Amino acid sequence: MDQNTLYSAYTDLNKKAADLHNAAALLEWDQEVYMPPKGAQFRAGQLATLNTIAHELLTSPKYEDLLQALQNAHGLTEIQQANIRLSYEDFQKNKKLPSSFVQELSQQTGRSFHAWLNARKANDFKLFAPELQNMLLLKRKQAEYYGYSNHPYDALLDEYEKGANVALLDPLFVQVRTELTPVLKKIGSAPQVNDAFLYNFFPANKQWDFSLLILKAMGYDFEAGRQDYSEHPFTTSFSPLDVRITTRVNENDLASLLFSSIHEGGHALYEQGLPQDQYGLPLASAASLAVHESQSRLWENNVGRSLDFWQYYYPILQKSVSPALDKCSLSDFYKAINKVSASLIRTESDEISYHFHVMIRYEIEKQLLEGSLSINELPEAWNQYYFNYLGIKPQDDKSGVLQDVHWSHGSFGYFPTYSLGSFFAAQLFQQAQQDLPNLTKNTTEGNFSSLLSWLRSNIHVHGRHYTSAQLAQSICGQGLNLNAFMSYVKAKYGAIYGITDL
Amino acid sequence: MDQNTLYSAYTDLNKKAADLHNAAALLEWDQEVYMPPKGAQFRAGQLATLNTIAHELLTSPKYEDLLQALQNAHGLTEIQQANIRLSYEDFQKNKKLPSSFVQELSQQTGRSFHAWLNARKANDFKLFAPELQNMLLLKRKQAEYYGYSNHPYDALLDEYEKGANVALLDPLFVQVRTELTPVLKKIGSAPQVNDAFLYNFFPANKQWDFSLLILKAMGYDFEAGRQDYSEHPFTTSFSPLDVRITTRVNENDLASLLFSSIHEGGHALYEQGLPQDQYGLPLASAASLAVHESQSRLWENNVGRSLDFWQYYYPILQKSVSPALDKCSLSDFYKAINKVSASLIRTESDEISYHFHVMIRYEIEKQLLEGSLSINELPEAWNQYYFNYLGIKPQDDKSGVLQDVHWSHGSFGYFPTYSLGSFFAAQLFQQAQQDLPNLTKNTTEGNFSSLLSWLRSNIHVHGRHYTSAQLAQSICGQGLNLNAFMSYVKAKYGAIYGITDL
Repeated sequence: MDQNTLYSAYTDLNKKAADLHNAAALLEWDQEVYMPPKGAQFRAGQLATLNTIAHELLTSPKYEDLLQALQNAHGLTEIQQANIRLSYEDFQKNKKLPSSFVQELSQQTGRSFHAWLNARKANDFKLFAPELQNMLLLKRKQAEYYGYSNHPYDALLDEYEKGANVALLDPLFVQVRTELTPVLKKIGSAPQVNDAFLYNFFPANKQWDFSLLILKAMGYDFEAGRQDYSEHPFTTSFSPLDVRITTRVNENDLASLLFSSIHEGGHALYEQGLPQDQYGLPLASAASLAVHESQSRLWENNVGRSLDFWQYYYPILQKSVSPALDKCSLSDFYKAINKVSASLIRTESDEISYHFHVMIRYEIEKQLLEGSLSINELPEAWNQYYFNYLGIKPQDDKSGVLQDVHWSHGSFGYFPTYSLGSFFAAQLFQQAQQDLPNLTKNTTEGNFSSLLSWLRSNIHVHGRHYTSAQLAQSICGQGLNLNAFMSYVKAKYGAIYGITDL
Repeated sequence: MDQNTLYSAYTDLNKKAADLHNAAALLEWDQEVYMPPKGAQFRAGQLATLNTIAHELLTSPKYEDLLQALQNAHGLTEIQQANIRLSYEDFQKNKKLPSSFVQELSQQTGRSFHAWLNARKANDFKLFAPELQNMLLLKRKQAEYYGYSNHPYDALLDEYEKGANVALLDPLFVQVRTELTPVLKKIGSAPQVNDAFLYNFFPANKQWDFSLLILKAMGYDFEAGRQDYSEHPFTTSFSPLDVRITTRVNENDLASLLFSSIHEGGHALYEQGLPQDQYGLPLASAASLAVHESQSRLWENNVGRSLDFWQYYYPILQKSVSPALDKCSLSDFYKAINKVSASLIRTESDEISYHFHVMIRYEIEKQLLEGSLSINELPEAWNQYYFNYLGIKPQDDKSGVLQDVHWSHGSFGYFPTYSLGSFFAAQLFQQAQQDLPNLTKNTTEGNFSSLLSWLRSNIHVHGRHYTSAQLAQSICGQGLNLNAFMSYVKAKYGAIYGITDL
């Protein structure tokens, strides 16, 4: 076979696996958005079948032969070579997992997710504990299958963020703690911001419509996507032409729907911007979870919580939800949506204390995987961490250990990418401000097309071609680091809280 | 291998194929209910992949070996034997289709469906014609693959209604025409029914809520199902625990949502009643499309358009949509929803002229498959048939040849099951009236539990164990025939139109 025939056989096989994975993604979307409750029983098996067949395809001897032949083939383009290289890395990783394990993990995910839903509803961790225990055992097994030299956590983290590991993250989180703790302290001693009006009554349909308005302005293509409600907001993609987001609503908390929509919108713009002609191949997927999160956090925080943004949108919001914000000035609104205060729910926390939420999960996950913390001890450990890091303690499981969906999905090693993404977002935004002299002006006019183009050409269009470290280096001229985030935090929150030496 | 090991391998393989088919069914449901328009492009390929892999599983040498070994195995239960027998029939049929053909057909279905949607929107058959032509060529090819002795139509019809063929249907439809034409004539000469108030204003949400009320009363389990909107109402199932229906709404036509919901509810009750422990095996599916349609038509017409039914529900409806029906008596309402008059849209036609709509499609499909009618001639032939059979002519494609989704899905040979189902519904309902002395009383009290139990134990629980002819024989003591339907029509419409010798 010549290299074109080989490459086309390789592409066909990958598309087939992608079709199966994307079908599974739709089954999962449906499960969290529209599925009637009894549907869960057979749905778990259906998901396991799709995932298992895809795994079998991607670990088949036929696929291995193709990859090996293509690695030695001549005349491939750079794009084709990058796909082959990444596919071979994936293959070597995938083949470490037996098909029976993939099936078991997929079925366990269904069970754990439903146990989590029920436990949340009943506000009782004990209902989740047995299925979380089963999941943890599988994740330990998975780490063993993958192998690691230092910590089992590394094996799982690598799936989400290639190149990251405990040896790098531990000192980073020490730095985060060291630098952010005094910032939080100074803010805590300054006169506090009033955000009481954010808890007035905001009709659900008004909040919904306003979120659509913003998503459209961001450039989210509703002909290739949609927004729905779910228990936990998320973004999912079945192709670059069908990228969906979900949100949630609280009629007495304006921030809940608003910022989760902008956040997921940022993820969705990335997925909609991935190269369509690479469908099914590595270059059609995101670079890493940290890069993904950099997109959502950049839109949510660097854009969506900026004064520039609200100069344009605040009068529109005010009018739409009148009279709820009639007596609140732009400046007071801006301060309120950036109020810093220790709170229990990660997704609703301010952008500084947010990283303590992430750190807590990171510490706990490492201990669970090592075996130095048991599932039974988890709620108490959780509450103790919140007290140690943030000085507050959850009064129940729902606002504590049951708040996040991730562990029910088996996503261990995932949370650190949230912090990495925020730090990278700050670096990217700093660079965008340099590259786009009209960025501020455009933002105050509700116009984001140049920012989106900048993200499209610097990040989205490359898919997985470069790692997060390579992207940071080539776009910002330096590796991933905390500096831009710290400058951003000091300037923004120094101004909000009137602290000159923050 | 002993027979238990063999049977369990056979079950596993079938469940895997069912998981793929059910995932495909969800992708199709989503496509018609929630998918953003641009999603169509990659969705077609995803569906083709799922269907092709399922087809490969069900035609694999491994599967053939299992089936052959199980046919000679001893000690299988009657249920197990029935599954094996039906699976072997399916296998022999499936293996006649090459995988490449299954993939092509699946992809064409996506393209034809979207061409149909666009053509309907533009009210222009020409936009649909090329894709319908492609579909027709594939269906002819499929008929050749299956083989037939008399007419290519037989090969396709057999998929939906085993045992039915042109040689049986041609004389049946002659009988239908012969017996129903004078009935229509007599009704046409009688004083006409006034149904103008059905076209008052009925808010969509009121119609929706009322349909949910009725569906619940029928016994449709909303914990294992849901109702949504779509262009063309349909029922789909991903397992007996997740059976969904769709409907449509017209705020100036009360009948449109109401009777389509009851109709689809009838289908859904059948699917929810199929045996859960047979998931993936032949006995977990419906006996045939005619039997399926007997369930929907029984609920829609024999129950939902009866005076008994509305004695209970009319006051509730009146109150809910007040003032739209304030001045309309129960008797006038009952007559209005049963008004007989030649009309253009099949799904909104009365239960007598309905069968002329079916006949027209049956005649046209035969000619298209034979090649005696071309796609270009189709709209004119359609309009001419409507004029010949019903004395009316569509003024545009939307109310003519573009009204039904079926051909875009490749469902040729499907329509006759609508008439067969109606006739079987009349036989079943006649029998239920004999078996359940309180049926009338229960219906006037809005209580359908004994009727549902009767259908569950006589029809639903058996799945595909018996053919429609066998079910008719064992439940009603005679084969499928027109007699019960004619008695029902004469008694009901004689009373409504005051014709003693109808």
